[in-house]
Amino acid sequence: ESGSFKQVARILNHGLSPTDIAHLLESSPPKERNLLWKLVDKDLEGEVLLYLNDDIRAYFLSKLNAQELASVTEDFETDDLVDLLQQLPDTVIEEVLHSMDAQDRQRIEEVLSYQEDTAGGLMNTDTVTIRPDISIDVVLRYLRRHKSLPEMTDSLLVVNRKDDFIGVLPLTTMLVSSPNATVREVMNTDIEAIPVEMTRTDIATLFERRDLVSAPVVNQNGKLVGRITIDDVVDVIREDADHSLMSMAGLDEDEDTFAPVMKTAKRRAVWLGINLITAFIASAVIGLFEQTIEKVVALAVLMPIVASMGGIAGSQALTLVIRGIAVGQIGGSNIRWLLSKEFVVGALNGVLWASVVSVAAIAWFNDPKIGIIIAAAMLINLIAAALAGTSLPLLLKARNIDPALAGGVILTTVTDVVGFMSFLGLATIMYA
Amino acid sequence: ESGSFKQVARILNHGLSPTDIAHLLESSPPKERNLLWKLVDKDLEGEVLLYLNDDIRAYFLSKLNAQELASVTEDFETDDLVDLLQQLPDTVIEEVLHSMDAQDRQRIEEVLSYQEDTAGGLMNTDTVTIRPDISIDVVLRYLRRHKSLPEMTDSLLVVNRKDDFIGVLPLTTMLVSSPNATVREVMNTDIEAIPVEMTRTDIATLFERRDLVSAPVVNQNGKLVGRITIDDVVDVIREDADHSLMSMAGLDEDEDTFAPVMKTAKRRAVWLGINLITAFIASAVIGLFEQTIEKVVALAVLMPIVASMGGIAGSQALTLVIRGIAVGQIGGSNIRWLLSKEFVVGALNGVLWASVVSVAAIAWFNDPKIGIIIAAAMLINLIAAALAGTSLPLLLKARNIDPALAGGVILTTVTDVVGFMSFLGLATIMYA
Repeated sequence: ESGSFKQVARILNHGLSPTDIAHLLESSPPKERNLLWKLVDKDLEGEVLLYLNDDIRAYFLSKLNAQELASVTEDFETDDLVDLLQQLPDTVIEEVLHSMDAQDRQRIEEVLSYQEDTAGGLMNTDTVTIRPDISIDVVLRYLRRHKSLPEMTDSLLVVNRKDDFIGVLPLTTMLVSSPNATVREVMNTDIEAIPVEMTRTDIATLFERRDLVSAPVVNQNGKLVGRITIDDVVDVIREDADHSLMSMAGLDEDEDTFAPVMKTAKRRAVWLGINLITAFIASAVIGLFEQTIEKVVALAVLMPIVASMGGIAGSQALTLVIRGIAVGQIGGSNIRWLLSKEFVVGALNGVLWASVVSVAAIAWFNDPKIGIIIAAAMLINLIAAALAGTSLPLLLKARNIDPALAGGVILTTVTDVVGFMSFLGLATIMYA
Repeated sequence: ESGSFKQVARILNHGLSPTDIAHLLESSPPKERNLLWKLVDKDLEGEVLLYLNDDIRAYFLSKLNAQELASVTEDFETDDLVDLLQQLPDTVIEEVLHSMDAQDRQRIEEVLSYQEDTAGGLMNTDTVTIRPDISIDVVLRYLRRHKSLPEMTDSLLVVNRKDDFIGVLPLTTMLVSSPNATVREVMNTDIEAIPVEMTRTDIATLFERRDLVSAPVVNQNGKLVGRITIDDVVDVIREDADHSLMSMAGLDEDEDTFAPVMKTAKRRAVWLGINLITAFIASAVIGLFEQTIEKVVALAVLMPIVASMGGIAGSQALTLVIRGIAVGQIGGSNIRWLLSKEFVVGALNGVLWASVVSVAAIAWFNDPKIGIIIAAAMLINLIAAALAGTSLPLLLKARNIDPALAGGVILTTVTDVVGFMSFLGLATIMYA
């Protein structure tokens, strides 16, 4: 068995890239994951950690002591190291910083001082800077003195003696320029640098709209402090998009699919508990009409239709608005238009499906009254659902509550209460 | 009023980039959108069209005749032009192709022959190629003869006389190499070129894992046919992620938030109709137990709790597995583990919340029997929900049905039927 272990270890460490290893770990149940992790070469551990999702990374990090951590992260770029440090307890951060030389420590401490979800937290400090007055020929010779250039270097950053950001010189521009031209003559000064406090989501939007590969980051005084590269932005885009999807089911985007049973069970229990409150509220509404149901038991048979159709219609509006907010499409000027549109859409579909359901109900229970009641209730609930689905995300957002997380629960409460209340309420009047 | 129009037009065309204009159009209701579109400069129209989502682009495209189209798309890169052509009726494509010179037409026709969702459909043909035997110095002089290099050029592609792909020369490598070195000596041959038939989603995964900016595309014979750049891959990542979110609510990821009322109403009506079938199936199940409900009306009050808790638990498993499939994390080897894990999680939460609900029900209706019934039904339904939520996406995927679109509807049917059936069925036995 030790022979086959060695074989697995060889394939793992020599046949796969660190991202592939990370993916394999993420796709493995806990036992296999721990086994595989032990087989990963010491000098690959650091890079593999980088590509793991937060949940799993935190788990493996917790098994390393400060010394192991320091050796694992030796060759890390600043942004990667900071990402990783941010997941550690303060005492461990202290120890790791302590094990570094003064210059590295200072650089790390600076980046650590920025908020994790801002340009400062996302940026790298490995910029290649040049002065505006030198010639392209000198730049080429300067570059040749490097053993390598940082990854994703698509442009050189132009700064003055005081490190004030002046412009960028894309490599593609430099390569078609005359060697005698000066940097100033060919550089691009149209580029707005990213302020160090810009949020991750805004940065992602900027990269997407401007098709950027990298962008300079400046502090409040216009001094160049680092650069952001598309590989990190892609991660932000992926995480933001995942966030909406996962939150709507009460999940975390860093959720580990193969987390141990107890961890998953606990997280899920909380979400079920919150939704149980909604369910009890709906039951309480039904409870108000017990006598009516006792008289006309067909009501109990049909009532879930009204509630569930409201839920479906509402969640369509809710999802559309949550996505619209996330991509910055919905704001002050178009909300009124959107609300009235969704109202009309709700009413039109209300009329359509109320007619269908009404005919079916009359045919089923041979009772015209029940057809009228369910048609009216459906219409009321579909309109309520459209209005709630559209306005809820905006109301929650304004109160700094995540619409993707809270929207669905509140919406269900609305459509259940309105659905049962209108259907059973109308029935109580009509069958009185 | 004509004066203020001119002012808007000036801001639009001179203050905003084409992507900003596209975003503004996407965020505007139909009337304003048509007005704004008329104000966009003729020579910006093409680029703005590129950045619009499919729905809106198709609308504006339908208003142009073939001649206008040809002039609007004059400066397009191949991949962008093909993207746009693919949305047009065949007769219009013919006309547009006809208006091009022979060389352009041939290039476009080649790309059009590839599937839209493969590397062939995503790639660009604007590669900068070099031969392996020349020196870096010659490469530099060759590049200087260009007026500009294609956007997102981070590497030169090395090919032989027969256009067979040999390797890549990253600009960052070239710039630190000796001018006397040959391309062959410094190029990177580790890069696997992307086969022209690779799917968009696989390409996105590859770019994410390898942190690529661009990658060469080769045909079946290993000949270089184009390259794919990160800006297009970012769009794929965004669309794929949006697809899961929107499909789960029965929406299209290209859905126009501000589409006209009738268009939206029609699309939504279809989804409501499909879900109505689910609702009727649930009602039919309840209908089987009319007599039991007539005897114990408390059952009607409590039954939605059992069904809705099942729906919530199931949709958590469903979302997790849909995401896991999308990122290639879930496959043959770990399905069994995942199924048994979700089974245990469902059972644990079933026991927990069954106890809570049972105590509440007994207190509410002062009837121990109903507490036992609802506890048993909850446990059964949460386990059924976990198993259905986990296995459904895999079963649907295996039948080439989109799990994000169909999963939710089928899951609700399962949790409603199992929930009502077990709760009312047990009650019928216990109260017989």
